Amino acid sequence: MMKDPLFSDIGSRLSARSGINELMEDLGEAVAGGHRIQMGGGNPAHIPESEALWRERWLEMGETPGQLESTLGDYDGPRGKIQFLEAFSEHLRNAFDWEIGPENLAVFSGSQTAMFLLFNLIGGQCGARRRRVVFPLLPDYIGYGDQAIDPGTFLGVPGAIELRGERGMKYRIDFDRLRLPEDTAMLCLSRPTNPTGNVVSDEEMRQLEVLAQKSDAYLVTDNAYGMPFPGVIHRPAAALWTPHTIHAFSLSKLGLPGTRTGILAAPAPIAAALARMNANLALANPSVGQALVTPLIRSGRLQALCREAIRPYYARRAAHAAATVKAALPSGMDFRLHENEGAFFLWLWLPELKVSASEAYMELKREGLLVIPGDRFTPGLREKWDHPGQCLRLSFGIPEDQVERGAAILGRVVPRLCRQIP
Amino acid sequence: MMKDPLFSDIGSRLSARSGINELMEDLGEAVAGGHRIQMGGGNPAHIPESEALWRERWLEMGETPGQLESTLGDYDGPRGKIQFLEAFSEHLRNAFDWEIGPENLAVFSGSQTAMFLLFNLIGGQCGARRRRVVFPLLPDYIGYGDQAIDPGTFLGVPGAIELRGERGMKYRIDFDRLRLPEDTAMLCLSRPTNPTGNVVSDEEMRQLEVLAQKSDAYLVTDNAYGMPFPGVIHRPAAALWTPHTIHAFSLSKLGLPGTRTGILAAPAPIAAALARMNANLALANPSVGQALVTPLIRSGRLQALCREAIRPYYARRAAHAAATVKAALPSGMDFRLHENEGAFFLWLWLPELKVSASEAYMELKREGLLVIPGDRFTPGLREKWDHPGQCLRLSFGIPEDQVERGAAILGRVVPRLCRQIP
Repeated sequence: MMKDPLFSDIGSRLSARSGINELMEDLGEAVAGGHRIQMGGGNPAHIPESEALWRERWLEMGETPGQLESTLGDYDGPRGKIQFLEAFSEHLRNAFDWEIGPENLAVFSGSQTAMFLLFNLIGGQCGARRRRVVFPLLPDYIGYGDQAIDPGTFLGVPGAIELRGERGMKYRIDFDRLRLPEDTAMLCLSRPTNPTGNVVSDEEMRQLEVLAQKSDAYLVTDNAYGMPFPGVIHRPAAALWTPHTIHAFSLSKLGLPGTRTGILAAPAPIAAALARMNANLALANPSVGQALVTPLIRSGRLQALCREAIRPYYARRAAHAAATVKAALPSGMDFRLHENEGAFFLWLWLPELKVSASEAYMELKREGLLVIPGDRFTPGLREKWDHPGQCLRLSFGIPEDQVERGAAILGRVVPRLCRQIP
Repeated sequence: MMKDPLFSDIGSRLSARSGINELMEDLGEAVAGGHRIQMGGGNPAHIPESEALWRERWLEMGETPGQLESTLGDYDGPRGKIQFLEAFSEHLRNAFDWEIGPENLAVFSGSQTAMFLLFNLIGGQCGARRRRVVFPLLPDYIGYGDQAIDPGTFLGVPGAIELRGERGMKYRIDFDRLRLPEDTAMLCLSRPTNPTGNVVSDEEMRQLEVLAQKSDAYLVTDNAYGMPFPGVIHRPAAALWTPHTIHAFSLSKLGLPGTRTGILAAPAPIAAALARMNANLALANPSVGQALVTPLIRSGRLQALCREAIRPYYARRAAHAAATVKAALPSGMDFRLHENEGAFFLWLWLPELKVSASEAYMELKREGLLVIPGDRFTPGLREKWDHPGQCLRLSFGIPEDQVERGAAILGRVVPRLCRQIP
């Protein structure tokens, strides 16, 4: 009989049953034909206009001599396809007026991989010091939580809760509480925020950049749901590019998660180091996503798709989902939804939840609805903070009738999990 | 003025200018239109029969309702596509008579990523102990060298050199020299060996498996060039599957490196831990490679392609390359080529080289030929061993006329780098 395998300390930690792999297992189950309603994962919606464009490009690649041969059959250099790097940096120059070139970019197998490399390139033990990664506005992305090889790297700071009207809320960066440790290497946030749909304001971003600059640190913005693709942001927002900023981008939320295409924009020495690290760990990057979109970026068709189809689609779906969930919950119950300023999620706060968020998740799963418990979205949290345990993240990137069925399950289950049943 | 960015200890090490990223930079330069002859990288050849099959499947995917939408537009679960895992495990059961199922498999963004996760899951600091990864037959793959997060993990053992005829040689595992440290967690080798084209014999593999079993360790075989795909092995060879074996597979050398598809087969608890680690670090896997080949594995067309087109192609190219290089070098010079038993490489030993292998590399690069210096293929080497520094790896997966031009450059440059010019 074989003993249980022995894992290294790092291996045990990085392979622990964590928020993100439970989520991905749930998502995999759904994709493989499970019957639960999938308001858990962050799978992008199947938007007809997007899919028509992917199909057109796919067939064009298949019919153009040479394109397929090089895309499938050649390794790219460690930074990604030159043509893609040129097209994407040109777009960033034109759209945001950034001074940026291919030397500032590097491609990775998805932005999750990009963030893993970035956190561990810059954060962690550095001689006698421990360089910290600070998440200045919790809740933030579940997938960051277990990515530090050096476990003491992350520090997460709870956001301030602003109540808005009867059913609304919004998190704000609590600058009074945000004391950066001396060895801060990075401030990091997703914008729009996954899980809340928050878009941190330009003014707050500028304040964070000043803090980063003072600490000789970087302000890292994860734009997976935001600029420039898919551009699911419903309020004016600028994108800051200075010697102290780093940006992560992704093609996943456009509708191309299966291609695994993430991109980092950073000061040139950092982009170069990340590309070397990626060559060492992963040899090269997936080429198909880059090849599919390069001519669409050059022609502006991808930008038009985001503007004319994708963003309006999610704006409609956000309004529908919020109205449906509000209507399904008893009017006498205390609940709030975060303002949806972008991304694909409703963030539901249930101040009177009498079970843990994990128990609520399990109970809803038993009843056929997958969501994510709010307390998973607390990378680096070191203090007691009950609030996220009273919250659930609900993804609305699924067909409307499923949102309606999901809301009905919420309406049936949630009241009995809360203290006050009206 | 911004200071140089400060990297963590781990980040500095993993992003160091290493063998593999120089190689990938050279390769990227070539792909982007450089004019040197590319006998450096391991890019698979462009084989017409393979490319016709990819094109057929590509167009079929584009024309079949639903296939493209799910392949591009859905995240798979952390282990990869269920359909692919089932088809591949069924093939392994049928072809090798292994008792194996999808629970033993996990997909990654290329087998380089798979090996990085595996090395660090099992090797490295584990409480007070340091679990070692032993490479029992150097030279071995350049890309392993810098993959250990914990730098003391790797131990490489020089092979014994067997001379064969006037111009031949073969490395053997030196079992007398192979003393496994007490905390050995893994024995690892590529088969066929990259860089030498060696195929370690079945008998040697069985001996290694017994050693692994005694140490409660794993024998890891990296089959990137071997079984089952692309199957570039020119001698009978069995594939061992026991509770102490782990196998890495890849779709790259079939001709699909741009899809980044690597697979590990391992005892179920290890496969599960690797999948969790991968979800945490990379979220999900590239889907396109898996989707392209799944029906080709089920129908047996991929197996037929390997047997009838790919293996014979490289057998012809190996013979041509060896004959061409032999003819180009002065007959009075001392040189030997490793037996080509598989893979895409000639391994040229120049016992009288009077400069370092790196200097030889630079000199050949200046003259328009990219190769890889042999001393890079020594992961975990801790003793002085001059021999690999007298060797060069020459890839022959490029058009024949380029091999001929490359050989001509070798014939012109190498004699003046060697002690005895006839």
